[in-house]
Amino acid sequence: MTYRAPVADIRFALQEIAAMDGLKATGAFDELSDDLTAAVLEEAAKFANDVLAPLNRSGDLEGCTLKDGAVTTPKGFRQAYAQFVEGGWQGLQFRPEHGGMGLPRALGSAVLEMLQASNMAFGLGPMLTFGAIEALIAHGSEDQRALYLPKLIGGEWSATMNLTEPQAGSDVGALKTRAEPDGDGSWAVTGQKIFITWGEHDCAENIVHLVLARTPGAPEGTKGISLFLVPKFIPDAKGAPGKRNAVKAIGLEHKLGIHGSPTCVMEFSGARGWLIGAENAGMAAMFTMMNSARLNVGVQGVGVAEAAYQRALTFAQERRQGRAPDGEGPPPHAIIDHPDVRRMLAVAKAKIEAARALCYHCAVSADEAAFDPDEEERAWAKRREELLIPLAKAWSTDIGVEAASLGVQIHGGMGYIEETGAAQHFRDARIAPIYEGTNGIQAMDLVGRKLPMQGGLPLRELLEDIRQTAEDCATSSNPDLPPLAKRLRPAADALERAAKWLTDSRRERADALAGAAPFLKLVSEVTGGWLLCVGAVAAQRRLKEDVGDPDYAEGRIEIARFFAEAVLAAAPAALADICMGEDLLPGDAALGVE
Amino acid sequence: MTYRAPVADIRFALQEIAAMDGLKATGAFDELSDDLTAAVLEEAAKFANDVLAPLNRSGDLEGCTLKDGAVTTPKGFRQAYAQFVEGGWQGLQFRPEHGGMGLPRALGSAVLEMLQASNMAFGLGPMLTFGAIEALIAHGSEDQRALYLPKLIGGEWSATMNLTEPQAGSDVGALKTRAEPDGDGSWAVTGQKIFITWGEHDCAENIVHLVLARTPGAPEGTKGISLFLVPKFIPDAKGAPGKRNAVKAIGLEHKLGIHGSPTCVMEFSGARGWLIGAENAGMAAMFTMMNSARLNVGVQGVGVAEAAYQRALTFAQERRQGRAPDGEGPPPHAIIDHPDVRRMLAVAKAKIEAARALCYHCAVSADEAAFDPDEEERAWAKRREELLIPLAKAWSTDIGVEAASLGVQIHGGMGYIEETGAAQHFRDARIAPIYEGTNGIQAMDLVGRKLPMQGGLPLRELLEDIRQTAEDCATSSNPDLPPLAKRLRPAADALERAAKWLTDSRRERADALAGAAPFLKLVSEVTGGWLLCVGAVAAQRRLKEDVGDPDYAEGRIEIARFFAEAVLAAAPAALADICMGEDLLPGDAALGVE
Repeated sequence: MTYRAPVADIRFALQEIAAMDGLKATGAFDELSDDLTAAVLEEAAKFANDVLAPLNRSGDLEGCTLKDGAVTTPKGFRQAYAQFVEGGWQGLQFRPEHGGMGLPRALGSAVLEMLQASNMAFGLGPMLTFGAIEALIAHGSEDQRALYLPKLIGGEWSATMNLTEPQAGSDVGALKTRAEPDGDGSWAVTGQKIFITWGEHDCAENIVHLVLARTPGAPEGTKGISLFLVPKFIPDAKGAPGKRNAVKAIGLEHKLGIHGSPTCVMEFSGARGWLIGAENAGMAAMFTMMNSARLNVGVQGVGVAEAAYQRALTFAQERRQGRAPDGEGPPPHAIIDHPDVRRMLAVAKAKIEAARALCYHCAVSADEAAFDPDEEERAWAKRREELLIPLAKAWSTDIGVEAASLGVQIHGGMGYIEETGAAQHFRDARIAPIYEGTNGIQAMDLVGRKLPMQGGLPLRELLEDIRQTAEDCATSSNPDLPPLAKRLRPAADALERAAKWLTDSRRERADALAGAAPFLKLVSEVTGGWLLCVGAVAAQRRLKEDVGDPDYAEGRIEIARFFAEAVLAAAPAALADICMGEDLLPGDAALGVE
Repeated sequence: MTYRAPVADIRFALQEIAAMDGLKATGAFDELSDDLTAAVLEEAAKFANDVLAPLNRSGDLEGCTLKDGAVTTPKGFRQAYAQFVEGGWQGLQFRPEHGGMGLPRALGSAVLEMLQASNMAFGLGPMLTFGAIEALIAHGSEDQRALYLPKLIGGEWSATMNLTEPQAGSDVGALKTRAEPDGDGSWAVTGQKIFITWGEHDCAENIVHLVLARTPGAPEGTKGISLFLVPKFIPDAKGAPGKRNAVKAIGLEHKLGIHGSPTCVMEFSGARGWLIGAENAGMAAMFTMMNSARLNVGVQGVGVAEAAYQRALTFAQERRQGRAPDGEGPPPHAIIDHPDVRRMLAVAKAKIEAARALCYHCAVSADEAAFDPDEEERAWAKRREELLIPLAKAWSTDIGVEAASLGVQIHGGMGYIEETGAAQHFRDARIAPIYEGTNGIQAMDLVGRKLPMQGGLPLRELLEDIRQTAEDCATSSNPDLPPLAKRLRPAADALERAAKWLTDSRRERADALAGAAPFLKLVSEVTGGWLLCVGAVAAQRRLKEDVGDPDYAEGRIEIARFFAEAVLAAAPAALADICMGEDLLPGDAALGVE
């Protein structure tokens, strides 16, 4: 079967767990209502299900081609992109004054999840444009915003992020592309960038490249990097695409997956560009793009996981093999009734729901951080957003790979055959833990920047929320909820101990970094588990008040409980791994370095 | 870089951990000596490094083609196969009376690891032949053995296993292929088999298909299955390939990986075949093949993990990015010096060494079970072999996928580009948890058959060995060893508790099956960790006696220690997951079944 957007799950996560509707109180989202949310999600679901999903496998098979600098995307992508533009999807979460619909970023994240799930290769194009729009809003001049934002927010033009060079990947500061003043306020940008997603394509009428480069005499490293706007076609006096700029795609990568997404080598040969923000302040602008993009990549992880899960779930209902202990009717029974297959489905489903809740909670926090009228609330929300971004990016994308791998496994031999589609998710999903800052970089960001922020305040606040929910579970009248508290509390305690160890003032940086990756996993699991418990409490309220489908509500409690036993219960045991210290990492001889 | 067989690691695991040299005492391996082991491994390494590894990527790119029933393997495969035959590699572990070299299966496993690591697609061909040889030795008639064994053991002819049909995958008993008596002692076999590895190819002069089929009036299910030998060319009076039989490849699967291995749809149209063993006793013969094949697939998991690891290790030494906390010289530093990258390498390396030790211990046990003159020793070894087979198969292949995924991650963006080679390992590795009995089937075998065997004796014996090694570590004069005992003991205790819960006489079958997969992981981690501790004790003895390279010995202790902290310390926390029971698996509504 093809993907069907899980609207009920998405609404539950947005409204019952991430409390998106609370954003109305900020005064910034007057139009937000239950009906509007439902209508937007249904429309997006239709677009994802009916337009994008059918292009997913053909796009993978066909891939992109480059000829004379022009990239042809797979059949149907152009038309789908036109429908994307027509639907106004690119502008959903931007302010009306910039030409957007003025809806919450959280709702935009939900729509993005559907794009990514139905067709990850397609969804990457709009995702990159999001980041560029945010960078322009935050750092562009008034003229730049007036000229570019309407086109980008409308989707007629797309955008790219040009960071990576062969010698400068995770180490952005090592880049060599240079920009020299042209004398008329513009700059001549020269250099080569690699791994440029949707760097060239045939879907939009113009492409706006945001390019990191060095100006003459710039300091070394990240302090000497500036951000430039380099349009493929230089806008003419009317703002329409004019003269072709000296930038072109000179290569396409042959990748493991996302074949429908053109990953370009871009050559800038004295291309005309304009500085965004101040000279040498490119890293700040880049972080604006990156923060947006990191959450979006997390959402992408959720999306690809969901798509893989749905495919496996359908297969598990249809495929009949052997005798299941509690199978109904005569064998062969559907494999979903074999406990081991049901467990694999449950692992994927529970982690997907947890990661989705985490991403949406992060997005609602971003909305609050931007729009809450109260300064302290904004500051609180900003801390929460910043703390969650590395978790949303890294944990969700790891779950994307895990769910895709489970999806292959559930299919058995059929999972290894390309035509089944399970293998494509496995190939597609594998990029997300790498780009927009590898998951290792996320762990360093968490331990090196987010954890020590304001003396550890963001994590303390999170722990407080977690313990409050544990209390809610412990005192619930529904006997299925107190066992959640039993797993959540020790997990929170372990998290606190691990954080204490990592931020101890005597701790060597290398020791903290050695434990960063398992620590990120621990915080994510505890946070994800907490949010599922928030969902369970909400589900219990629904049951009590007889609101909505009781089976659905019961299901949320079952999922929280499964996650608590299968994941949360083991979380505290990660302490030894996290607090191992660098000394216990094997040396070169042990690793076989010659 | 291309793969270099890790001869030192392999010898350490074979001789110091799995105690292969102890097999001499059985009297069945008189020629076995340190020199011979070294010579065999060096020769095999040469073949793997110089002949097979260079064909790995080209084989992946080129794949196999089917035309008019004939399969062409990738360029170079035929020549490599000829060298394989010439080297006598197929017969290494078979008895001289059958035309083999009479060396231990354990040594054969080590050689097989190199074949699989250097070129998994190629290595699959010989692997299938191994299983067929074992089935013929165990169940074939004298005539069948005389006719087929010399050709198969010599490698001139290859063999296949024909089990799977579209409706009969894990549920072998559901197969429909039928065999009817021809009247002259032979049978006419008719049906379609899928996923037949090396079912047709151009490397060997004949292909011997072992085919599961039903005879007229056979009981339903697994009790009515018989095994037939169906040669591609029917041997003439001189035993040379004669008349073409009515079996042919009618399709090739388009797979995620192992493109160089032809995965065929085979059609048997009244093909002439001969019964192997008794009518309706096919499952027993199949289990002979399967037991052999399962350990071999585990070895394959180790191999592909090693290949992926080596590639990542080389990249991590060459790639320079940013400033590492303890980096030497001016930045950028090699990424191996970033703690997070070193941790990823360490996780892969430690798990590979543990899984290798587990597979070789299983192989040595198989040798003892076959050849020890003492009946009790044989019985003990058989119990150990049987207990370890599902672990070797499932855990090693999961590690294959994990190490390949870590390998991609360590490469960063380059890992996602096919030409780097990391992605191929990721694609190739993914099949191993599926075939020869999915890893879920292995978990069912462990919990349903191996664990309750003889009242739980095999696991009790294993726990005894583990606790003895913990004692050895605890009392060691080397201060690095007692901490191993600190992690090993509680892990063994947890394993014992989990086993007790699973085998409790009041336990429902569904509850035990619900915990089977995490239980398999726990037994494997504890067993793998134990074997690394056995290695650490041996390394300490070497250090004390000043034998061999002290850095290498120190490295083994570091790896054991890392595994103990990163994996063993968390093992006991799996209890909640294992002992959850079926009731806590989410129901259909929770999973989103409509």
